[in-house]
Amino acid sequence: MSHYLVIHGPNLNLLGRREPEVYGRDTLEDINRRLLNWAEERGIELHTLQSNHEGEIIDAIQDAANWAAGIVINAGAFTHYSYAIRDAIAGVHLPTIEVHLSNIYAREEFRHHSTIAPVCRGQICGLGWLGYQLALEALHAETGRRALE
Amino acid sequence: MSHYLVIHGPNLNLLGRREPEVYGRDTLEDINRRLLNWAEERGIELHTLQSNHEGEIIDAIQDAANWAAGIVINAGAFTHYSYAIRDAIAGVHLPTIEVHLSNIYAREEFRHHSTIAPVCRGQICGLGWLGYQLALEALHAETGRRALE
Amino acid sequence: MSHYLVIHGPNLNLLGRREPEVYGRDTLEDINRRLLNWAEERGIELHTLQSNHEGEIIDAIQDAANWAAGIVINAGAFTHYSYAIRDAIAGVHLPTIEVHLSNIYAREEFRHHSTIAPVCRGQICGLGWLGYQLALEALHAETGRRALE
Amino acid sequence: MSHYLVIHGPNLNLLGRREPEVYGRDTLEDINRRLLNWAEERGIELHTLQSNHEGEIIDAIQDAANWAAGIVINAGAFTHYSYAIRDAIAGVHLPTIEVHLSNIYAREEFRHHSTIAPVCRGQICGLGWLGYQLALEALHAETGRRALE
Amino acid sequence: MSHYLVIHGPNLNLLGRREPEVYGRDTLEDINRRLLNWAEERGIELHTLQSNHEGEIIDAIQDAANWAAGIVINAGAFTHYSYAIRDAIAGVHLPTIEVHLSNIYAREEFRHHSTIAPVCRGQICGLGWLGYQLALEALHAETGRRALE
Amino acid sequence: MSHYLVIHGPNLNLLGRREPEVYGRDTLEDINRRLLNWAEERGIELHTLQSNHEGEIIDAIQDAANWAAGIVINAGAFTHYSYAIRDAIAGVHLPTIEVHLSNIYAREEFRHHSTIAPVCRGQICGLGWLGYQLALEALHAETGRRALE
Amino acid sequence: MSHYLVIHGPNLNLLGRREPEVYGRDTLEDINRRLLNWAEERGIELHTLQSNHEGEIIDAIQDAANWAAGIVINAGAFTHYSYAIRDAIAGVHLPTIEVHLSNIYAREEFRHHSTIAPVCRGQICGLGWLGYQLALEALHAETGRRALE
Amino acid sequence: MSHYLVIHGPNLNLLGRREPEVYGRDTLEDINRRLLNWAEERGIELHTLQSNHEGEIIDAIQDAANWAAGIVINAGAFTHYSYAIRDAIAGVHLPTIEVHLSNIYAREEFRHHSTIAPVCRGQICGLGWLGYQLALEALHAETGRRALE
Amino acid sequence: MSHYLVIHGPNLNLLGRREPEVYGRDTLEDINRRLLNWAEERGIELHTLQSNHEGEIIDAIQDAANWAAGIVINAGAFTHYSYAIRDAIAGVHLPTIEVHLSNIYAREEFRHHSTIAPVCRGQICGLGWLGYQLALEALHAETGRRALE
Amino acid sequence: MSHYLVIHGPNLNLLGRREPEVYGRDTLEDINRRLLNWAEERGIELHTLQSNHEGEIIDAIQDAANWAAGIVINAGAFTHYSYAIRDAIAGVHLPTIEVHLSNIYAREEFRHHSTIAPVCRGQICGLGWLGYQLALEALHAETGRRALE
Amino acid sequence: MSHYLVIHGPNLNLLGRREPEVYGRDTLEDINRRLLNWAEERGIELHTLQSNHEGEIIDAIQDAANWAAGIVINAGAFTHYSYAIRDAIAGVHLPTIEVHLSNIYAREEFRHHSTIAPVCRGQICGLGWLGYQLALEALHAETGRRALE
Amino acid sequence: MSHYLVIHGPNLNLLGRREPEVYGRDTLEDINRRLLNWAEERGIELHTLQSNHEGEIIDAIQDAANWAAGIVINAGAFTHYSYAIRDAIAGVHLPTIEVHLSNIYAREEFRHHSTIAPVCRGQICGLGWLGYQLALEALHAETGRRALE
Repeated sequence: MSHYLVIHGPNLNLLGRREPEVYGRDTLEDINRRLLNWAEERGIELHTLQSNHEGEIIDAIQDAANWAAGIVINAGAFTHYSYAIRDAIAGVHLPTIEVHLSNIYAREEFRHHSTIAPVCRGQICGLGWLGYQLALEALHAETGRRALE
Repeated sequence: MSHYLVIHGPNLNLLGRREPEVYGRDTLEDINRRLLNWAEERGIELHTLQSNHEGEIIDAIQDAANWAAGIVINAGAFTHYSYAIRDAIAGVHLPTIEVHLSNIYAREEFRHHSTIAPVCRGQICGLGWLGYQLALEALHAETGRRALE
Repeated sequence: MSHYLVIHGPNLNLLGRREPEVYGRDTLEDINRRLLNWAEERGIELHTLQSNHEGEIIDAIQDAANWAAGIVINAGAFTHYSYAIRDAIAGVHLPTIEVHLSNIYAREEFRHHSTIAPVCRGQICGLGWLGYQLALEALHAETGRRALE
Repeated sequence: MSHYLVIHGPNLNLLGRREPEVYGRDTLEDINRRLLNWAEERGIELHTLQSNHEGEIIDAIQDAANWAAGIVINAGAFTHYSYAIRDAIAGVHLPTIEVHLSNIYAREEFRHHSTIAPVCRGQICGLGWLGYQLALEALHAETGRRALE
Repeated sequence: MSHYLVIHGPNLNLLGRREPEVYGRDTLEDINRRLLNWAEERGIELHTLQSNHEGEIIDAIQDAANWAAGIVINAGAFTHYSYAIRDAIAGVHLPTIEVHLSNIYAREEFRHHSTIAPVCRGQICGLGWLGYQLALEALHAETGRRALE
Repeated sequence: MSHYLVIHGPNLNLLGRREPEVYGRDTLEDINRRLLNWAEERGIELHTLQSNHEGEIIDAIQDAANWAAGIVINAGAFTHYSYAIRDAIAGVHLPTIEVHLSNIYAREEFRHHSTIAPVCRGQICGLGWLGYQLALEALHAETGRRALE
Repeated sequence: MSHYLVIHGPNLNLLGRREPEVYGRDTLEDINRRLLNWAEERGIELHTLQSNHEGEIIDAIQDAANWAAGIVINAGAFTHYSYAIRDAIAGVHLPTIEVHLSNIYAREEFRHHSTIAPVCRGQICGLGWLGYQLALEALHAETGRRALE
Repeated sequence: MSHYLVIHGPNLNLLGRREPEVYGRDTLEDINRRLLNWAEERGIELHTLQSNHEGEIIDAIQDAANWAAGIVINAGAFTHYSYAIRDAIAGVHLPTIEVHLSNIYAREEFRHHSTIAPVCRGQICGLGWLGYQLALEALHAETGRRALE
Repeated sequence: MSHYLVIHGPNLNLLGRREPEVYGRDTLEDINRRLLNWAEERGIELHTLQSNHEGEIIDAIQDAANWAAGIVINAGAFTHYSYAIRDAIAGVHLPTIEVHLSNIYAREEFRHHSTIAPVCRGQICGLGWLGYQLALEALHAETGRRALE
Repeated sequence: MSHYLVIHGPNLNLLGRREPEVYGRDTLEDINRRLLNWAEERGIELHTLQSNHEGEIIDAIQDAANWAAGIVINAGAFTHYSYAIRDAIAGVHLPTIEVHLSNIYAREEFRHHSTIAPVCRGQICGLGWLGYQLALEALHAETGRRALE
Repeated sequence: MSHYLVIHGPNLNLLGRREPEVYGRDTLEDINRRLLNWAEERGIELHTLQSNHEGEIIDAIQDAANWAAGIVINAGAFTHYSYAIRDAIAGVHLPTIEVHLSNIYAREEFRHHSTIAPVCRGQICGLGWLGYQLALEALHAETGRRALE
Repeated sequence: MSHYLVIHGPNLNLLGRREPEVYGRDTLEDINRRLLNWAEERGIELHTLQSNHEGEIIDAIQDAANWAAGIVINAGAFTHYSYAIRDAIAGVHLPTIEVHLSNIYAREEFRHHSTIAPVCRGQICGLGWLGYQLALEALHAETGRRALE
């Protein structure tokens, strides 16, 4: 049975309240519930984490090396400066997919650069909560598919 | 019934031959066949186009405004300088998702910047041919889902 | 009798449909008709060309060296990267005036730079379709006026 | 009856003497006379101002808000650094067209950037003294034409 | 009764000991006491927080959305790179004023840029501890004054 | 008795008319009246100056060295390029506080840089007309308070 | 028997007419004739192509993979922005030598950068038409010489 | 008796597992043991800390001011953006030496810049775990040697 | 008899009072007196001007074209941004030498760039008031000496 | 009889030993012998110089003005910073061709810029030792050929 | 028996006289004597070289390949531009450690970049003369220690 | 009796031959003779040096510390990159004046920056050979004049 970790970075706990015109009206609980349903239907075990603390996210990535087959991460604003999270992802050697709810390339310039992109398998952005699910699909498909490797 | 256009930009007809360690061994025909199967199973009509000519891609985007509900585009190297393709996408007002087979953020620096990203709905990169399918899923889900809007 | 070439670059065939709040509601046919009327009243012969293909625009500029006394060009998005169009203009030695419907200096930063500006006689931007007519006036006035030389 | 203000910035009083190979041999008086003739024929009232003092130009722009329907401005070298003139133009909300005698994009790099371009209606450059007249034509045409708005 | 949160970022607990020639000899306790006195005299309730942990500051900003009418924040060195704190401030929609004890524009170049400035109401710097009090005055004045809105 | 000079730079005489959504609806006269009232209540003598002429502002700063105990300056657009005003402030050695009505860090990029900031005591921005009063408070407090020194 | 492709990019058909002080007075036909003579003497088969269309050049490079042993390319202005031609060269894995008639490092700054240089075997510039012949010599010598590999 | 603090930043707890071709096969425990042995032989007391939390590192540096004679710090990825750690080092006024296991100047460009270097006594990089010991030697030698001051 | 104009830009009237450690203790009157003495001894007529107003300096340069054989200018802070003064110098075609009291290359970075340097005959900086005299010597020597031409 | 100078810059005496995967296994003696043979067959006199001393190379270029008809130079790493060698080449007015064994545009970024390229006739790079011979051919052909001039 | 080369670059012969507040009061002879003593005690043979001539340093590095087991180099100001020394170090394949007496990251910006750092084993800076000894310790330890490889 | 050293950098021995339109027709011997005459008339002893070798110039500067009261240096192209010459000048603490024959600010951009300017007393450029004499005058005047100190 596959296990995956889904990480939500800083301020994503504000979802639904914070700038709904940018991020939509779903709360983080809504999104996690949908992802858990999707996982359960496929016999996948999913762990989700939200943290405003960079160190907790690094700890979680390191810990995932002990139990997870892959990581989906929306590092929020940490995306744009946390080389420590980048090193954690590079260090644990788990396939990791970066997700952003909004299209970061259509927003402020500082959001165009991701420190973690070069060490992730790939990136999905601008597709709202569905981006998380598509990232999980890609991770899940990877076992039986050569092209992703 | 939904109609979508899938555009493959310059040199993607070399797939399978060209740098397989970067792009995998699937040919473009292999990929298109999988996408058409996926579409057929869902009653979706898919048109695919490959061109090495920027003008043909612009013409195709403009033409799609007459029949398609959305576009999936891997603009190849045009991604990095064709502001004319960008203007075409912005001009037709169809939901458009940018796809790249490889992780463009882990390659040469000139590949990190996409002229079309700001006018697309979103971007999927680094997930191989599956990226195209996920992009079509996202376009298809958009009709019955509010979050993408 | 004077002959001039008016070139409309990529996506200008979308005029009237595409972002009317930026480019106005006139179609390209409306604009060409007005310019042809203006020319006819003055005994000037005008040829107009719209193309989404960079190569066709280069071919047309080269061909104009055989019959035209000057060129008015709105190179659309090619303005910002086509050094090949620049070389064509520099190569044919015809007085050429660059036109833009909108004020390119009040839009996205990539639109502030024109590759062709240094090899054109001058530039008119932000004055809508009238910019084309003023450019033709300037070309036409040049024969009997020293200051433009 | 329409009233317009034509502003000539610093050193334009040297016209005819200063670098004639760049700016032509017409003096500023020659140019103003032609513009006044053009205006008189059309029942337009024209005021012209030349000043080497940034503050006087700002004062004149602010004053024009009380009587003019539009401004044509060749801000000379102030073009390249006077954010104060820019703010004046933005503040009075009069349609303003920027004019340059020479093609500023074919000269030293510092002349390529205009602080006032983003707050003007448009720009005409490289067409010698005729540029002023074309700018006035554009301002004058604006009343009865929608496209310029 | 108004409630405000005053946040002191990393290393501000060293005040009085650390580089007194830059930051003065007052300790953080001295400053907080003065601010609390000022607040008490006006019937304002003030909470103060000092933390060297970015995550705790984000948590505190998010929490303030439940009880505070505004925030005064000296984010210390986080000012220069914490886009996560910026997103927190933008997310809670409380009027927030940025304060710095020293004149950050007269120090090392990296201190000239503030990631949070664009999402704050305003900035006060270089006025020592008094800057905090003035920021509170501004927040407090805002209720009965239109100009700040 | 304390004397201070308040300087309003170019275009600030347009206040109330110019872009009220950015600068509010108060006229400069309204603001000056409030500041004079505030000063009078405290036995402070205040001189105010508005000028669109950089040279006049420099003259006024130099002259203030003869009678004023400090300066509050909103240099308007001169803020972003007048190194001459900077040198004047540095030359007279009067405590000077820079004020901006709007949050310059939330506006166009050229407004983010202040030539005078490094030679001022501090900066207050984004707090509307109240910023002037707070700056005066800080100047006034400086005599009897060590922290500002 | 060896087969090589010689590609002349945009505006090179203007040779002899266009800026002879930069490119000399030989026409493209003159140059091609000399190269064909040189080839014939050595039993080499040479194909030459001139095109103003980026897509045609890409098509020709891809096609050459079926019959040619190497490519000599003067991509004209495409040199400076066509990452699509670069990808074509990289994709077909034929030894390719970049040629420029003039010394591109002694001209405008935009000509100093070549998008294709990193994927070519080498570059020859500034040696007029002889550069093409030397490039062919180098390609031809490569079969029996180790140093080029 | 001398007391020193050795700080290992984020992800250094992965040592031995993480990219051994870059960082070697020694675990952090191996390295700490060697350093403690080295210290014990010289009658030095050593405290070591590893943390993935920037705030904990700042707290530890501040605390060291109460007991340590110097600090050796490998701030890991925090090196490249944590101005807060820089301020902590500058604030406590303890001699501090920066250490990196690998040669940061032979790796990705973002690793070439250290925010803390300007406030440290010196830097040792590229010498593996021995770098820590050499740094301790330098700190220890400092008491009886003038040159380091 | 030779006539020269010596221009002192903004804030140079503060000399002796302003930052004497940078500019020395001589007042502008002291310097002018020495230069006038020097000139008188050689039968040269010297006019000096100090102004804080950019426009007055431009007017004076233009006026000098009617009577002076050369100009010595210390444009003060205008040196670093006044392209209008640059155009005035270029326009009047008088030999002009730029002088700075202090070594501008040993001060703040913004002082390293002079807008007027490229249109002056030469530059003397860092030699205190003597720089003015040396510049006058150079102008004076020019008549009978070929090397300066 | 023609005389040419071939200059090999710093570290080229290491050829064959130094990074053979980049520069091949031929020693400098091997290359010089081939070039001398090629020259002897054509009745050309060739002098070769290798030096690790910038000054010796400058001296040799200056001396060549007395006896040589042209120079072939591989300035090694001096290529990237020696403006003194550039001035020497520009000063002696001998036709000079720049050669590099490897493709400098496919290596570290600092190797992409050549200080001497703008003052050389042309550049040949990436073609191994043959590049030297082709450069000599080009120099030799120049006498009887117009196109190179 | 191990042999090492210690290189002191330009102006290091001024040590003790030159800016003692930066470099200390020890002369180069003092430092060399200490290093030779240290070496002698350990049966190591040390050669030291000081030169103000880049070419001599390159020659010495190349020569060291014949007899030395490693190099310690303080290239002085050559550090910041001598790509020729860099190529020499890369070419001889000896383990090389870069040393600087002062903390180059706390000085002028041009000293922050080292051309040789990427091809050295590591760097020690800011530790005064002891840095040389620690570098020698590291070279010496390398034989019997795996971690440095 | 005063002793001064005049240094002429690389390629200045070509003077009179090299680009006379830039540097004039005087040879270096002509210039040195004039300077020696000037010195002799004033009882000053002058030594002149020309070298194409950076190391020789450094040696000469260091040696001058033993006998000279000041240095006049035209470092030629070394001006733009030799930080080693800069360190030599800074190290010997002799008043040094930088001279350039031509106006370096009116030439190629790389000539606008001088590495030695910040450590020299001042700079004279664009005044031909007279610049050397004026520099000597300034050095000579310095003993009896306070303003230069």
